[in-house]
Amino acid sequence: MTRDDCIALDRDDRLAPLRDAFALPEGILYLDGSSLGALPRRTAARLAHVTAQEWGQGLIRSWNDAGWIGLAGRIGDRIAGLVGANAGEVSVGDSTSVNLFKALSAALALQKADAPARDVILSERGNFPTDLYIAETLAASNGLKLRLAHADDLVDQLTNDVAVLMLTHVNYRTGRMHDLAERTRTAHAAGALVVWDLAHSAGAVPVDLCGADADFAVGCGYKYLNGGPGAPAFVWAHPRHTGRMDREQLRQPLSGWLGHAAPFDFAPSYRPAVGITRFVCGTPSVLALAALECGMEVFAAAEPHGGMAALRAKSLALSELFIDRVEARCQDHGLALVTPRQAGQRGSQVSFAHAGGYAVMQALIERGVIGDFRGGDLSHPTGRADPALAADLLRFGFTPLYTRFVDAWDAAEHLRAVLESGEWRSERFARRAAVT
Amino acid sequence: MTRDDCIALDRDDRLAPLRDAFALPEGILYLDGSSLGALPRRTAARLAHVTAQEWGQGLIRSWNDAGWIGLAGRIGDRIAGLVGANAGEVSVGDSTSVNLFKALSAALALQKADAPARDVILSERGNFPTDLYIAETLAASNGLKLRLAHADDLVDQLTNDVAVLMLTHVNYRTGRMHDLAERTRTAHAAGALVVWDLAHSAGAVPVDLCGADADFAVGCGYKYLNGGPGAPAFVWAHPRHTGRMDREQLRQPLSGWLGHAAPFDFAPSYRPAVGITRFVCGTPSVLALAALECGMEVFAAAEPHGGMAALRAKSLALSELFIDRVEARCQDHGLALVTPRQAGQRGSQVSFAHAGGYAVMQALIERGVIGDFRGGDLSHPTGRADPALAADLLRFGFTPLYTRFVDAWDAAEHLRAVLESGEWRSERFARRAAVT
Repeated sequence: MTRDDCIALDRDDRLAPLRDAFALPEGILYLDGSSLGALPRRTAARLAHVTAQEWGQGLIRSWNDAGWIGLAGRIGDRIAGLVGANAGEVSVGDSTSVNLFKALSAALALQKADAPARDVILSERGNFPTDLYIAETLAASNGLKLRLAHADDLVDQLTNDVAVLMLTHVNYRTGRMHDLAERTRTAHAAGALVVWDLAHSAGAVPVDLCGADADFAVGCGYKYLNGGPGAPAFVWAHPRHTGRMDREQLRQPLSGWLGHAAPFDFAPSYRPAVGITRFVCGTPSVLALAALECGMEVFAAAEPHGGMAALRAKSLALSELFIDRVEARCQDHGLALVTPRQAGQRGSQVSFAHAGGYAVMQALIERGVIGDFRGGDLSHPTGRADPALAADLLRFGFTPLYTRFVDAWDAAEHLRAVLESGEWRSERFARRAAVT
Repeated sequence: MTRDDCIALDRDDRLAPLRDAFALPEGILYLDGSSLGALPRRTAARLAHVTAQEWGQGLIRSWNDAGWIGLAGRIGDRIAGLVGANAGEVSVGDSTSVNLFKALSAALALQKADAPARDVILSERGNFPTDLYIAETLAASNGLKLRLAHADDLVDQLTNDVAVLMLTHVNYRTGRMHDLAERTRTAHAAGALVVWDLAHSAGAVPVDLCGADADFAVGCGYKYLNGGPGAPAFVWAHPRHTGRMDREQLRQPLSGWLGHAAPFDFAPSYRPAVGITRFVCGTPSVLALAALECGMEVFAAAEPHGGMAALRAKSLALSELFIDRVEARCQDHGLALVTPRQAGQRGSQVSFAHAGGYAVMQALIERGVIGDFRGGDLSHPTGRADPALAADLLRFGFTPLYTRFVDAWDAAEHLRAVLESGEWRSERFARRAAVT
């Protein structure tokens, strides 16, 4: 394998034209789409139109005339297509945290009706903190316990007191991916419902929520969906649950007016809308939704090029190339791969542990290679030693929509240069104490 | 009073230059800033910069380099200045409904600790429905009762079982304004806390939350603050409450990661930030915040022209002119003023009841006079007859930042023409049944 081979791979890549759909800065290797996706070229013009024409000229009339009222639903249908759900099943708006609050609340309400003795929310110790914080609060307010386990111990911990298993499909630090179908099956067999967080998988790996018979899911708009900083998030519920909630008034607690069955009747009592619409709360930002819709249009453009299956194949090829190159070129510099080598177990990102991870990432960024640093944390051990939790990590996201093979190659070379030269040891990259 | 007198008033109006800060469509009299404020001229350029430069070129680095991380706080400080709060006391992000959920939850938690026997949330029957829906759900989940009273009966209903009085400062239908200080005083004397919804008052009328010693408040970004469709909302809590919550862990339930004391530590347990920051949940939309900041900058530009006091004086003069003209010109056409004539009791909008309100508003809109229709509703009587609740209403918002005296004059003339000609009786303005 040579750099020219990478250039040849890019030349032959049928997804390569999609890179032109993004406005990427010159001289930057952007490997942080796992944190904030790049800007689709169409977005600026769309926002200019929504602002000057739809808002400025159309004013209040644009809720109908420009279709603002249906915008979130249209985006939801596009997202549904990426995660194995059906049109009309996905609600878009609010943040991932707020949507998780809705989904987990609904799952707990269902279990309270069906299995009131179950008093545990089970999750993974390495889950993204906001998920754990939301679960912690809902556990406390419902008189439940939050049980955190190592990923490898989840099956053992799925005891008959577990009401809900709440997992993030792809771990934000390690890139390790759960088998969504298998975990769902195991949880159902144990009598638990499952709430999935697809923050690091929607748009990055194939997801089949209906095929897996999953219960609830939430996801993020600003990472692999390229919806812009703080883009609206989404929530999905299986129709068997929303259908039951229709009859039995099992509600999610954020009962805002746009989740009402007839919001413009301005009736004094809440009557939830049918289906997923009851998960809508207040008025969503039209500007933010318009940007997210542009991000989703890139996925529609990917369909003729092989769609999600082709994107997944390229993502795995990119991350494998990067792992191979880093391991070949950066030996003896204290790097340890924490992302699974086995393709089926990893998402679209690669993380290496390094004791000087913070400084190494700063040195890379100075060279124009933008990834992420994620610090290690031992403050809540679960009894099982886990270097992946303890270690400081370098994280690299490989967004197959715009990342080239030559980018993966070059990023590995930069990493080697940073480590070989020792430039990361410079005082200017030293980690400062957080301002409190 | 003649139309020429209105032109003279506009010529002499020291706030008149502020109209140039807005991009208003030609030939439209926009009297719906009470529903969606107009587009500030600066907003389009700002959004273009945030999109192309900060997101497109800066990418993830812009959270620090472009100050995204502090954006919500900077806007919160500007809003604080409009509502009589202090810098650092207002959190911006999420919808009004979600913020009300946070504020009401926090108020109930405080009362549960201090006065657990109080089991009533008291509100106004004519409150905006989303407020009632959120209160309904929180009442049910906390084992409380939601008591709805007519505005005139609120004092009588403030019995010793009321935990929280939840009111909207200016009523969305009638434009009637509560005396915020007096209501707060009465509630405190009765042992209740007060949660204020400033959706129709922030930016429209002077508000002095600290002067009134209020407890909690929320408000809307897309009406009088001109932040764009679905703009982020805000929440305020008196420091005596956030200070107590610091010590006693009285939490609001949306415990997302950006409300954590140290979000980038990624610690597994929630530790709420000091002060109002604990009311932040997930990541806010930077695009939506940037647009809202442009809306707030217009208020800063109003300061040298007399600021909120001058805006209030102009708003009252505009609405009084409109009321006078409509009553003088539209007699015998079945209009009935439902907005208080007394200046101290009305916000920045004027509503007239009319049996054909829907069609009359459609006819006005066809003429380029954009107001709002709000249908009547008798489905939840509180025992006191209230024509303002039952009637179909024409609502006209008088945003003093960009509405001219001649606009108020002309709007009244259009209303006369619609009623005199009977054009509103045309089949094309007939109210269609809502699609279910």
